[in-house]
Amino acid sequence: MSNKKAIIVGTLAFDEIETPSGSSGKILGGAASFSSLAASCFGVDSAIISIVGKDFPDEYLDIFRKRNVNMEGVEIDKSGDTFYWKGRYHTNLNRRDTLVTELNTLANFKPIVPESFVKADVVLLGNLHPAIQHSVLDQMKTKDTTVVLDTMNYWIEGAWDDLVKVVAKTDIITINDEEALQMTTANNLLDAAKKIESMGPSYIIIKKGEHGAMLYHNNQTFLAPAALLDNVVDPTGAGDTFAGGLVGHLASSPIVDFETIKTAIVYGSSMASFCVTGFGTKSMINVDLEMASKRAKELQSLVRFEL
Amino acid sequence: MSNKKAIIVGTLAFDEIETPSGSSGKILGGAASFSSLAASCFGVDSAIISIVGKDFPDEYLDIFRKRNVNMEGVEIDKSGDTFYWKGRYHTNLNRRDTLVTELNTLANFKPIVPESFVKADVVLLGNLHPAIQHSVLDQMKTKDTTVVLDTMNYWIEGAWDDLVKVVAKTDIITINDEEALQMTTANNLLDAAKKIESMGPSYIIIKKGEHGAMLYHNNQTFLAPAALLDNVVDPTGAGDTFAGGLVGHLASSPIVDFETIKTAIVYGSSMASFCVTGFGTKSMINVDLEMASKRAKELQSLVRFEL
Repeated sequence: MSNKKAIIVGTLAFDEIETPSGSSGKILGGAASFSSLAASCFGVDSAIISIVGKDFPDEYLDIFRKRNVNMEGVEIDKSGDTFYWKGRYHTNLNRRDTLVTELNTLANFKPIVPESFVKADVVLLGNLHPAIQHSVLDQMKTKDTTVVLDTMNYWIEGAWDDLVKVVAKTDIITINDEEALQMTTANNLLDAAKKIESMGPSYIIIKKGEHGAMLYHNNQTFLAPAALLDNVVDPTGAGDTFAGGLVGHLASSPIVDFETIKTAIVYGSSMASFCVTGFGTKSMINVDLEMASKRAKELQSLVRFEL
Repeated sequence: MSNKKAIIVGTLAFDEIETPSGSSGKILGGAASFSSLAASCFGVDSAIISIVGKDFPDEYLDIFRKRNVNMEGVEIDKSGDTFYWKGRYHTNLNRRDTLVTELNTLANFKPIVPESFVKADVVLLGNLHPAIQHSVLDQMKTKDTTVVLDTMNYWIEGAWDDLVKVVAKTDIITINDEEALQMTTANNLLDAAKKIESMGPSYIIIKKGEHGAMLYHNNQTFLAPAALLDNVVDPTGAGDTFAGGLVGHLASSPIVDFETIKTAIVYGSSMASFCVTGFGTKSMINVDLEMASKRAKELQSLVRFEL
């Protein structure tokens, strides 16, 4: 077990998901839930920074407490309800429509980093308004923290100036393929990665869904596979789970370099492959490092060939 | 060098291609051209079976003769012109519109296998009407030939019964991801591969364009990478070149099994990565086995990681 510390900033939420195979009802969701369930498998000293409302069940908080996740940074705002999202997936699960978004107490979210985590080794800035992501970095009392940022089209379109500021302070960015092209007006992923590199991050991870992920760093590239699955139930949270597995491995590694990040991506991909086989966080509750390592070995064998 | 023999059945054609970067003019095209240029790099004893018209320049035939490709099976039909295709690619090169298709002498094509190739070790049935593909198999005088079949949506939609017959006699099928799903009404590639397996082929290769290719065989899977390119000029012929590299490697291997086919796919992917960097067959004229092997090693390093 490592003594390294990891902060996970993101939403704790209620999700309600409809897919061709059924309806989830109102369940635990949010980027921080998925990321934290994945990261906590690595035995790192982690903390969630988030906000919930008066309706958030204590049993849900216990899920994280039982995994030794520090919850001091989770504000319980009695003035309202927890962030709620409802979505419906199309037949092939590649597209979804948002049916309802209720920000509720998330509108009041002002992240506060617990004193014991202001020198954390890794911080994962989950998908949130980039100004909120930045406010976490402002509270850090060391320059050695590895900053991992996840973002999406919503902020590219609606909060560009703030996004540029937080991207400039990012070491490792994770972004979807379409969004990487949108953000850079590039025609291909290699160009997009180079353009994002010029904005600040040393390591650019472009997520390609079922096609895996690409890592770019200083003219070096790596392609990580995604597991071949025929039992996908719900893709919600796959990206957050990926980021959580990535951060969990990084926080349990003595150094952070190209080789370590390659392995971390494979662990992220491994974790995500479990996530999508059940509604919401359901599958992630039972995943452990042994299962993730076994799946990572399968991914290694999936791409191995002789010349 | 191997004494194994490979037959390549497919079109020799004039192509005219428009892309955002320019227009090709009327140039050498056709599945057999691309496949043969790739396969002939492996020093195998190969033959093209095709048809051309009175307008097909002898210089074009010389391109293949110089690579020791047997051209006895190429009928020169003086009654008309050569098959002609004109297409225009969209901005991101992922989609194209066919502007002109003139079958010309291709409408008269009755493939005849030269006597010296009726016991060939490998036959590549390039994208053609499945009844024509089948007529080649009827002429083979051995049951040991490895049959590699390429097909597309046009025949799935328009010649299903004939397609089923030739697929039943196929050992290795190559097909695009979208077409594999269309052909099997599966929701994911793993299911699609299993359904295609039940139609006859032992090895199912699903091509995913820039995302590489998947091999499925008897509950084993392999994911091959595609090279990361930022200099794609013209995707025309990439699939045919892939199939040619695959067949070239197989015909130069002592055995055909899962491991050999994995390597063959990587050689196919390597060859295709050169093909797309110029209009039509232009880049393939200068590719040799050394270049393809170097690229294959780069692909190996692109996906390698430590656990």
